[in-house]
Parts: sequence; C-alpha cells; structure tokens
Amino acid sequence: MMSKFFSPKYRALTPYTPGEQPKTGQYVKLNTNESPFAPSQNALKAAEAALKTLQLYPDPECRALREKMAGVLGVKPEQIIFTNGSDEVLNFAFMAFCDRDTPAAFADITYGFYPVFATLNGVPYTTIPLAEDFSIDVKDYVGLNKTIFIANPNAPTGKLLTLEQIERIVAANSENVVVIDEAYIDFGGESAVCLIHKYKNLLVTGTFSKSRSAAGARLGFGVADEALIADLNTIRYSTNPYNVNALTMALGLGILEDESYTKENCQSIIKNRAYTTERLRALGFEVIESAANFVFAKTDAIGGKALYEKLKEKNVLVRHFKKERIREYNRITIGTAEQMRQLLQAIEEILAEVNA
Amino acid sequence: MMSKFFSPKYRALTPYTPGEQPKTGQYVKLNTNESPFAPSQNALKAAEAALKTLQLYPDPECRALREKMAGVLGVKPEQIIFTNGSDEVLNFAFMAFCDRDTPAAFADITYGFYPVFATLNGVPYTTIPLAEDFSIDVKDYVGLNKTIFIANPNAPTGKLLTLEQIERIVAANSENVVVIDEAYIDFGGESAVCLIHKYKNLLVTGTFSKSRSAAGARLGFGVADEALIADLNTIRYSTNPYNVNALTMALGLGILEDESYTKENCQSIIKNRAYTTERLRALGFEVIESAANFVFAKTDAIGGKALYEKLKEKNVLVRHFKKERIREYNRITIGTAEQMRQLLQAIEEILAEVNA
Repeated sequence: MMSKFFSPKYRALTPYTPGEQPKTGQYVKLNTNESPFAPSQNALKAAEAALKTLQLYPDPECRALREKMAGVLGVKPEQIIFTNGSDEVLNFAFMAFCDRDTPAAFADITYGFYPVFATLNGVPYTTIPLAEDFSIDVKDYVGLNKTIFIANPNAPTGKLLTLEQIERIVAANSENVVVIDEAYIDFGGESAVCLIHKYKNLLVTGTFSKSRSAAGARLGFGVADEALIADLNTIRYSTNPYNVNALTMALGLGILEDESYTKENCQSIIKNRAYTTERLRALGFEVIESAANFVFAKTDAIGGKALYEKLKEKNVLVRHFKKERIREYNRITIGTAEQMRQLLQAIEEILAEVNA
Repeated sequence: MMSKFFSPKYRALTPYTPGEQPKTGQYVKLNTNESPFAPSQNALKAAEAALKTLQLYPDPECRALREKMAGVLGVKPEQIIFTNGSDEVLNFAFMAFCDRDTPAAFADITYGFYPVFATLNGVPYTTIPLAEDFSIDVKDYVGLNKTIFIANPNAPTGKLLTLEQIERIVAANSENVVVIDEAYIDFGGESAVCLIHKYKNLLVTGTFSKSRSAAGARLGFGVADEALIADLNTIRYSTNPYNVNALTMALGLGILEDESYTKENCQSIIKNRAYTTERLRALGFEVIESAANFVFAKTDAIGGKALYEKLKEKNVLVRHFKKERIREYNRITIGTAEQMRQLLQAIEEILAEVNA
C-alpha cells in the first residue's frame, strides 16, 4: 500500500526488515543478537530514578553521558555523539558524508541496513565482494574515493579485521570518511576508537544493544574527531535534538558505571561461543570463526531455510537471510549456556530426523 | 566548526535551537511547555516493569500501544504511527510528502522546526503571513498545491483554529497532504483526528510531551488514512525500525490507561492559564487568547528580550524568540498555581524596578 501523495523519491525504496520480535515468551530467541543478560541492577536503578522527572525534556546535549563515556573511551566529550540506537548515527553518517558526488562503498555481505540508508538518502553505492571465505581484502579498500562503511566484526559472518588492517584502510582513504561500525567489537575485537586521535576521517560507531544489554532502551553512539561529530550534530539538531530520552540516558550512565559487569558478560558469551562452535562442528557444521555474539553456520545435511524453519517449529528462533551467497547459512545468537544447550539439542533432533 | 567531509547539501543548514534545558533545579522552568505534573503512578509502574526485559529489542510494530491508542482515538491501529517524539513524525512527513516538485507551506509565525525540516530535506517552502492579530485566514490556504503544515493551536501564539476551519483547509487541498500538528490540542482545542475517516490527505500529529507529561520519554504519533501511515512506515523502516524504545512504549501504554488523570491535569492548566492571563492583563500586558499550555504576552513597559533576561536573573525561565515580528513577546509556559504565583511576583518586581 502506498498513497498517491508519497514522494517519487521513495517509491522504489525497500525498507530494512528487522528480525522477528515475537511477543510471546515461547522461543529460545537467538535471532537478533541481543544479550541474554539484563542490564546491571545499578543501571536499572538509575533508570528508575529518572522516572521521577519524566515530564521534563532530556538534556539535548547529553552532557553527563558524553562525559562519562569520554572517560571510558579515553576521548573528549566533544568527540562523542549519542543517538537513538546506532542505526541513527549510521543514517546520520550517510546523510552527512555521502551524496551524489561522494558515493558509499561497503561489502556485498554485511549489515543489511547500509544499502537501505544509501537508497533513502539518494546516495549511489558500490558493493565490494568479500573473498570466498567471507574475509575482507584490505587491498580492495585502498583509495576508493568513496565513503566507506565496514562492520567490524562483520555481520552476519562474525569475521574480524585487526586494528592494523583497519588503520591501513583509514590511512589509505584520507580524503574520505571511513565508518567502522563496531556493534559487536566487545566480543573479541580491538576497537578503532584509539585511532580517532590520529585520523580526522575516521568515525567509529557503537551500540549499547549488544554487550551492554540495552537493546530495548535504544542507545547508540559515534566517536570521531570533533569536526565530524559537529557535522553529525548539525544533522541531529535538524531532525530531532531530543533524540535520546531521559530514561535511556540515565540507564546508559548506570551501565557505564558497571563496565566490569559488561566485561564479565562478554566473557560468558565468548566461552559459550567457543563451546557452541565446537559442538556445531562436531555435528558436521561449517562454522565461521566469529568475534561477535553470534555464529554463522551451515551444514550439508540440511538447507539453511529448512533448518531455520525446523528450529522455529521447535521454538528456537535463529536468523536466516535469503541473499543467494549466504542462504545456506543461519546466524545464531550466542546466549546463555542453557540456551545453547537447547539450541544444540534441537539441532541434534533435526539432524536425526533428516538422517532417518 | 565543520569538517571538509560534510556534504555541501547541508553546509548552509541552520539547525533548530531547542529551549534552554538547565540541569540545575534553580529555575521556575516555564520555557519549553512541559507539564508541571509527573506521569501517573500507574504509568510509571508500567515503565518500571519494562526495565526487566531491557536486553530485548522493543516491538518495531509498536502493536500494543497502537491498539490502545486506536481505542482512545476511535481509529484503527493501522491508522497510527508512533515515533521518537512528534519531531520525528513531522520530519517523516516532510520526507514522504514534500519534494522539489511539491513544496511545503506554513505560517510565517509557527513552530520554528518546520523551515529546518524543509531545508534539511531540500524542500522549497513558502511562508504565509499571519494576520496582524496572528490569526490564520483560511482563505490564504485554499488550493495551495503545496503540502501544508499547520500547528493547531499555533505556537508560540496559542491561537486556535476551529475544527470547521481546519476541515475547510483540508477539503480545499484534496490533492495535497495537510498536516495538522496538534501538540497542544488537549488544552482547549478540538482534535481533527475525527476527519481522517473522511479525508485521505489529512495527517494529524500529536505528542505525549505536553498534556501527557512525558517530554522526557519522547513519544509522538501520527494519525491518518492507512495509506499515508504506510508511507510514513516505509520511511521509518528505512531509518530506524526500533525508533520507540521499550520503556517509553510501556510508559505510553500506562498513560493511555489513565486518560482521566490527563484530563484533570489539562483542566488545572486551563484554570491556571485563565488566572495568569487575567493577572498579566491587569499588570498592563497584552496577552493573546491561548488554547495551549502557554501564553504569549508583551508589555509596553519593558522590551521582550529585557523581560526574558530580568526574569532569568530572578530564576524564572521563559522563552524569547528573536524573530522581528514577535521579539517584543515572551512565551510563558503555564505551570502549577504556585509556579504562576512566582512568575507573577517576579514580573511585578521587574515592573516596579522599571517604573522606579
């Protein structure tokens, strides 16, 4: 359905399809890379306290949160922007740093929202094929003369670039902005935030939705040289200055006061990922080595879509993508040990049925 | 400050300037039209309950909230979109229903964000001067061949159009979308929502930031024929599908369960507005008859900017706009009876100083 009033600019737009978000609790939910752990009690208390003054607008400058985050990341508050999830800062980056004359470039297999943002903003884009093993070849990203978007670790593969590889790409595109989308960096990667002091063309984005257990609260951020952040703020103040609500702001502050809790949770996920990877391989799966809170896996025993469907029948929800190159795979979020046990048991049952 | 990477598209953009949001509690805060009342205990409890599952993404379809709101408004859930404050739905409307070939039109004196949204989206716009008394002449809005944005009651004047006047404008522009921004409708106006069943070109927007006491939570909405809502959802799913966070969603549901609380609060504001208007007039002010939770007032005794500054010195914060046509006025939020007493006392002191 579309009205006759809809601008021709957007008529061909295919929106992003988020993963299923069932309202019932029946599923072992391993499809949208959420944390299985609640935010810390301290963080929840901070959000609760903010309920008392909810009739007042939040601080549009997000000052307290930026100051706290600056301490955590070792940057200045002026080098940080907070947004309503990291999708918002990514969209702002497509707006601010791309246009008809400055196209975007990203991998053929990566976060599915990049082409949507590009199309939404009328930005031409090039996709750069990943190697056969889904790795990025740094040589493909030298002097592109385009605004580059790289998810690191990449989604949905979980494959990681080293900090040295990222630096080579940033250094080799000094006349263009390079956006490193670090939604999953805390599960085994090295953040590129330290490079913002050296490179004025680097924007690192992050989210509180994964390692920091706050997908429901929507909190994302960008870190870069002050001038890039100022550009993003020009966009922010021209769309929605109060983009981060007061509850999320308070929760975010509480979360940052409990960095050790976040780190412990990441260690649990890393441990469960190693176990799940090993078990899946033992069951005959090809599992890509992941640095994220998910694994990307396939097996010759059953097709990707069929496995997704059979798991759903058994109340285990994973994410399947229809794209040709990856349609034999499923992306499986790493949850608690118990959730992984349930997943593996369901998979064993399915494989037994298939082999019967 | 601007980086060399900032797209030329946005280099001339002047962002919106939100009202001051001081972090200290020293001020009688009457500058950004917040409610002086907290959300109901029931609503706060609902938000608190949502803290428990904050590691999970919110429902991108906002289904429970849309269903509840549909009941309140007498429309279908498919005729409602929820957004991160009403600024977001307004921006979506500029995106979806305006472009180079379909310019925007709005009053010369109205919500200051409209020209920013237009410029951000590369949309040409015409401003239609209000009459000398700041009223809208319906005849100026007949067959404009433009997408029309009308704040009703208008900001910062508080002047109201009747439902019959709104209907004449909507009917006289059937080939274009007419957006009625009802941020302040609950303080004395009649909503145009009932007209969406009759007119496919009408979009009514609203917010939980004023009458519903939730400025800190950021919750806005649009109501229109399904096809217009579908267009806005295409934009929403292409920018930020999880635009409304889980805490705000739960709070909003709780607020809608307490409509009588909202109505009582509106009655208090209406009473305090009548009192404040009367007292200001007795002190020699010209006060525009307001249907909103603020009054717009000036006096020959002292200039608009000077009054704003002197009130701030006395820890009373009101909103002053530099725009030539209205720079002798101040916009004063209507708060509690006690806040109004403090305002009026400060004004009396200032007038005494001026006359001394």
